[in-house]
Formats: sequence, structure tokens, C-alpha cells
Amino acid sequence: MEQKKKIVIIGGGFGGIELAKKLKNKNVEIIILDKHNYHTFQPLLYQVATGGLEADSIAFPIRKIFKGQKNLKFRVTEVKKVFPELNKLETTIGNIDYDYLVIATGSTSNYFGQTEISQNAMPMKSIPEALNLRSLILQNLEAAIIAKDPVKESELLNFVVVGGGPTGVETAGAIAELKKHVLKNDYPELDLNKVNIYLIEGSPELLGAMSVQAQQKSKQFLEELGVTVYTEARVQGYDGQTLSLVDGRKIGAATVVWSAGVKGVVLEGLSTEVVVRGNRLKVNEISLIEGYQNIFAIGDVAAMITEETPNGHPGVAPAAIQQGKQLAKNLVNLIENKPTEAFKYFDKGAMATVGRNRAVVDINKIRFQGIFAWFTWMFVHLMTLVGFRNKLVVFVNWVWSYFSYDRGTRLIIRPFKPFKEYKKPHDAEAT
Amino acid sequence: MEQKKKIVIIGGGFGGIELAKKLKNKNVEIIILDKHNYHTFQPLLYQVATGGLEADSIAFPIRKIFKGQKNLKFRVTEVKKVFPELNKLETTIGNIDYDYLVIATGSTSNYFGQTEISQNAMPMKSIPEALNLRSLILQNLEAAIIAKDPVKESELLNFVVVGGGPTGVETAGAIAELKKHVLKNDYPELDLNKVNIYLIEGSPELLGAMSVQAQQKSKQFLEELGVTVYTEARVQGYDGQTLSLVDGRKIGAATVVWSAGVKGVVLEGLSTEVVVRGNRLKVNEISLIEGYQNIFAIGDVAAMITEETPNGHPGVAPAAIQQGKQLAKNLVNLIENKPTEAFKYFDKGAMATVGRNRAVVDINKIRFQGIFAWFTWMFVHLMTLVGFRNKLVVFVNWVWSYFSYDRGTRLIIRPFKPFKEYKKPHDAEAT
Repeated sequence: MEQKKKIVIIGGGFGGIELAKKLKNKNVEIIILDKHNYHTFQPLLYQVATGGLEADSIAFPIRKIFKGQKNLKFRVTEVKKVFPELNKLETTIGNIDYDYLVIATGSTSNYFGQTEISQNAMPMKSIPEALNLRSLILQNLEAAIIAKDPVKESELLNFVVVGGGPTGVETAGAIAELKKHVLKNDYPELDLNKVNIYLIEGSPELLGAMSVQAQQKSKQFLEELGVTVYTEARVQGYDGQTLSLVDGRKIGAATVVWSAGVKGVVLEGLSTEVVVRGNRLKVNEISLIEGYQNIFAIGDVAAMITEETPNGHPGVAPAAIQQGKQLAKNLVNLIENKPTEAFKYFDKGAMATVGRNRAVVDINKIRFQGIFAWFTWMFVHLMTLVGFRNKLVVFVNWVWSYFSYDRGTRLIIRPFKPFKEYKKPHDAEAT
Repeated sequence: MEQKKKIVIIGGGFGGIELAKKLKNKNVEIIILDKHNYHTFQPLLYQVATGGLEADSIAFPIRKIFKGQKNLKFRVTEVKKVFPELNKLETTIGNIDYDYLVIATGSTSNYFGQTEISQNAMPMKSIPEALNLRSLILQNLEAAIIAKDPVKESELLNFVVVGGGPTGVETAGAIAELKKHVLKNDYPELDLNKVNIYLIEGSPELLGAMSVQAQQKSKQFLEELGVTVYTEARVQGYDGQTLSLVDGRKIGAATVVWSAGVKGVVLEGLSTEVVVRGNRLKVNEISLIEGYQNIFAIGDVAAMITEETPNGHPGVAPAAIQQGKQLAKNLVNLIENKPTEAFKYFDKGAMATVGRNRAVVDINKIRFQGIFAWFTWMFVHLMTLVGFRNKLVVFVNWVWSYFSYDRGTRLIIRPFKPFKEYKKPHDAEAT
């Protein structure tokens, strides 16, 4: 009897999970590797960072996802390097062999080489990073109340979000709602007029990938909530106290959220020639990395460059899920010496929420904004969340927040430090 | 017009919160200080540590508790020292004056001077400590799966709880249920026969403060769940790998939970003469610390020594709440030059849960065990939880767990390290 082929998947995000699930009853051996023991529902990270949801409700233990899947093993580990000529991975728990390797490592914040910004601004791409940001926002409010120097006070009360994509728009909106509904009640000593929220975007419009209606309406919604929106404004630097724009404007701010871009998390050991724009891996129409016979990439880290998609597919959950699904079929085809099928992306549209009753939705030519868009956004996100308990807890939180105008999860879970020590920890994972 | 008296309360636990709430419409100025920005519902910490509840559902932002209370300010700070002769506190955010000071700092784990144990065993008295323990339990399971050395594997799969009070009984029971319902499904590679849970108690009986029926039944319940109970067993040392008992027995274990005792968190600057057994502060029948005119202590840190209570009151939430309530009245009486009233403790009874359908309850002469006790336990804890959202989220989790036999919150939120580096971080707060 022939030995089962061994498929190793690096990453338990949307793409990796979908691929492994679709291989459930196939005659293969699967090993899925992740540095965390949980899958993160990234689209709702901003709600964790702004006190709307508990971290546990948007994360799901990877072992639970694969309960009962007999052809799969899961390991918590960090992959250090791949040796393509040996079909071998070096990891923190030893070497792992593979017949087929799938890189589904996702993306991380892109600071475009600006070290100073990367050391001082807050990323929001993982649960520890979101909890770290939540703690910083709350710590800065506590510090503002006792600040004696008006310049320091102003820095502590200025919140800047850099990047006008969906994450930036949603985060700025959520901080504005925090100001409107929570600070008013819980920080009576604060002068709310001193609390400012800025959203900084380099291009002329917010939500560049969406329709003109969505772009205009999201800006209007943000301004209604009191957010100051700067478009065509490029960030030059941020030293932890002052954010400088290229045009010379300066904003003193102790909290700067960085959502201005992402880059793929590539793996050491691959040819540098396959790394293209955005640090993504160049793959063909069956997700195979150029120049390799058995190494694939899917999701945010993959750039499937075709005539229709000169920059690859958008770095969103549906693209990763669809690529994972298609690759499951193609891996089986390859093993059984059957012809493979080219990936076809089905664009499900895009949406972003700004705040209560305020969201924008594009589904092909159908575009709508406002309260119905907001309910659509909530419904789609609830349905996509992994796990019944998580759906239930998120739903309870949303219903409760809707009626109470409140945010329940406001724990500072890192040590409280006086203002001058406020720096982003170098290893955000440690918090 | 006379100036308002300034009452400073150190600690936002059950006692401090109750005292401040009861002073709501009084003509005083209140400052409440805590090193966290949230109140912790300590009786359910063990469920956070064992993956049953999210941390956010048993914690409540202190600012929200006092929303709308105009005579109160809240500050996140650590108090360093008191200067009784100056009526002044030294804190990390500067000096704070008081007319009346109330010490409600609670208790922390007591290792009875055994440094080695304190460095290697896991405490469970705060949210960061409970999350730290949860992460360690899950990390040790992941490490066990890949362990090659059978001795190491056995250490990783032995879970020891030291101390047979309510916390120890509840924790041992919860780990046993984790084994029974979660490990079976989610860790198919584990040989469950190798997973052992021990509960170690120095005295002849578990739940020393409860009735004989509760003591016997809780032991029986634990044994039904597969917990090995050692009574009259005293711990001599724990080096991080091997737990040694005074009688010579040894247990190799990578996880040791320490719930064998607590001690009061006293404040530097007070006379050492007022510190009695258990590191508690000796107070009179109106909670005034012996030898002082305006410094009080309530809750776990206070020992109100009378003829009826030669060791003070038990360190439980109802005692702290009742002392806080009575002290609110007496502080007003003192300010208005009216006679004070001696504190009278109303014993509400005691209860402990071992697992699904298994709890023990003593209410005066009424004693019952089993499923009805379990529902009583849940009802009482739900009602005592602060905040409607928290009640709702905990209720949803409990109902979901009851029907699914599962635990939903199983995130490792500290960095994953290989076994040899597993040590308790020196500053558990940092995790």
C-alpha cells in the first residue's frame, strides 16, 4: 500500500482552516501549525481594541475546530525556515517533513520601513495587539485625568488612526463612539471638548477599494461622529509624542493606531525572486509558488498574478477561504494524477461599519448605506464567526450595547505605568 | 461652611465598593484607589483559569460602578506608604491627603515563607494570575503531546492543587471536568489515563469551615470525577518539577496551583503591632485599627477580634460587604458626632461547587448537596456578579457549557515557550 501523502499547512487563519476542513475525509495526512492555539476572527479585532467585545469571543481554539477530524494533527509552534530541496521545515519544536507545503501565514502591519513609527505606533493584527491597544487607550484616559501639564493632557486625549481602509474607518468610528457614550458617563472629570479623534489617509478618498457612494458616506458618518478626517495626508514620522505629516502639520498624540498597510509574512528559505509587491509570494492559478513543485501559498500572503488581477486578490477573508477550498480540490487532484482546476475568485463585495446605525455596503452594483447596511454588516459578521458560543456571546454583547449605549469590556490587562514610560512593548505578544 | 471630610478608600474589592456606594448621597468627598481599573469577582476566578469563562465577564470597570456618583473620584494607582501622623498617602501618582483612611486591600497568596514554592507554584488571586494559569495548563497539554521523555510527559500531565478550601476544591473539580469533557475530544493523541489530578490538603478534611456532610460529600464528588485527594498531607517543597510532601511522597508535576492560604495585603507605615495572624490588621468593632483615630480596615485584610471571633471574620465576600456597609454608617456618625454602632456579622453560610450537578451548600442548619446545591450555587453567584452584561455573558456561557459539555475560552495569551523555560514569570501582572 502506498503511503499517505503528508500535507503541512502553516497558519490557522481563514485560508488554512478552510483547506484543512475540506481535506477532512481525504486519504491524506494533515499537520496544521500555528504560533497561537486559536484562530482569530480578524475583522472584529477593532471591537476588542475599543472595549466592545471580549478577546475570547472572536477567537476559537484550533483543536476544537478539528474535533473528530482523524487525518489531522495540530501543533503550536513557530516555523523558522523551510528547506525546499529536503521537503523539510525547521520549527521551534523540531523538524517537520512534508510532501506538500501550504504557506497560509497571513499578513502583518507594514510600516514601509519607518522604524520610528513601528516602535511607537500601535498595530492591531492579533489578539495580543488588540488587547495592548485597549489597555493603552484606557491607560491614557486615566493619565489624562491627573495630568497637570496641558500639553501632556492634550497628547493623552488625542487619538490618531492612520490608514483609511475598512480597519481604520471602523477603529476611528469606534473610538468616537467610546467618547460619545462612555467617556461622558464614566469620566465626568474629563472635558470632552479636549478629546480629539483623527483619521489620516494618504489618498484622496477613504475606503479606496469601495464605491464612490461608500467613500463619501463613510466620511460623512465619521464627521457626524466628530472624527477629523485628513485625506491626501501622508505621515512622515511619529516619535511617541508627536505625529508629523509630510505637509508640515503636527499632532501631539499618545495613541496612534497603525492601519495604513499590511505585508505578507513570508518564510525564510524560499527564493527571494518569488517575493513580490507587499511582501507576497507569487503563485500561479492553482496557488503553487513560482519555481516550486510542492509549495503553495494562499490568503493574504499569496499574490495570484493573472491578467485580471495584476496585484493579486484583495487581502480579505473570502479570498483566503475560496483559495483554501480550491486548493483542497487541487491537492487531491495532484495526488490522484488528475488535472487541476484554475482558481476563480468570486467577489462577495465589501462593507465597513462606522458606528451605531452607520455602515456602508457594496455588493456588486448594489450599494447601500446607513441602518440597513449596519444590520447587514452585523448579520454577515455573526454568521462568519467560528463557533456557536462565540456567535452567542458576540450577539449578547451587541444587543446589550445597542440598548445600553455602553461598552462592557474595559479591563487594562497590562501593568499600569506613568505616562513617560508609555511605549509599545517591543514584543507585543508578551502582553 | 465647614469643609467636606475626605475619605480615601484603598481597594476596589467587595468591601471598598460597598462602602463607597453606601456613602453616595452623603456630604463627604470620596477617593477610591486601586491598582487595577476594574473590580474582580474573585469567587469565579477558577472558572477563568480553567477555560470556562472569559476574564471580562467576571471583572467590571470601577468607573462604571460609580457612574453618576458625584462625591467620588477614582484613581488607578499603587499606594506605597501611609504617613499616619500627616494624614497622607504616598502613591505612584503623587501624595494624597485624607481625613479618614479605609484600608480594603484584601489578601494575596500565602506561601508561609517558602520561597521556592512561591517561585514555582501558580497563584490564582487576580485576573492576570488566572489567565496565566489558564495559559500554563494549555501550554503543558500542548507540550505533553510532543514530549518524547515519558518522565517529562508525566510531569506535564500531572495537575496538583494544594489547599482543600473552596477554591482548591472548585479548581480541582474544574480541571477534572476539563479532562473528562474537553481533553477527550480535543486531544485525541493524549492517553487520558496518564492525566492525573491531585488535591492536597494538610488537615484531615476538605472544606474545613463547612459541615461534616459538605466535607464528606465534596470528597466523594471529587473522587467520582477522578481526582486523587490526599488529606493530612503537607507540602514540603516544589522546585517546578517535583512536589515533595513532608511524609516523603513525591509527585512530578509541571502545574501546581497554590490555594493553601492567604494573607492580608498590609500597608507600609503602620505600626507593626497592629499586624496579627495571617498578616491582618487588628481592628475594633467599628473597624478602626487599634491605636489610630482615623484609619480603618475592612474585608480580608481586617481581623476584627472579639470574644465571639478570636481569629476575626472569615475572608469571604459577605463579611467584606457587611463591614463596608456598617462602616459607611459609622463614618457618617463620626463626622456628625453621633454614637457609632458595633459591627454584627450575619453568616450567610457557605457553598462550593465541585462540578456539573455537584455542589455542597450549608445555610445555618440547612445542608444539602448535589444538583439542587449546584443550581443554588450558580444562582447566588450570578446574582452577586456586578453588572447586567456580566450576568448575561456568564449565564450564556453556563447554559452553553451545560448542554455542550464544553469550555469555550481556551486562548493561550502569553508567549509559547518550550517546556524547560516554563517558569512562573516573576511579575505575574505582566502577562
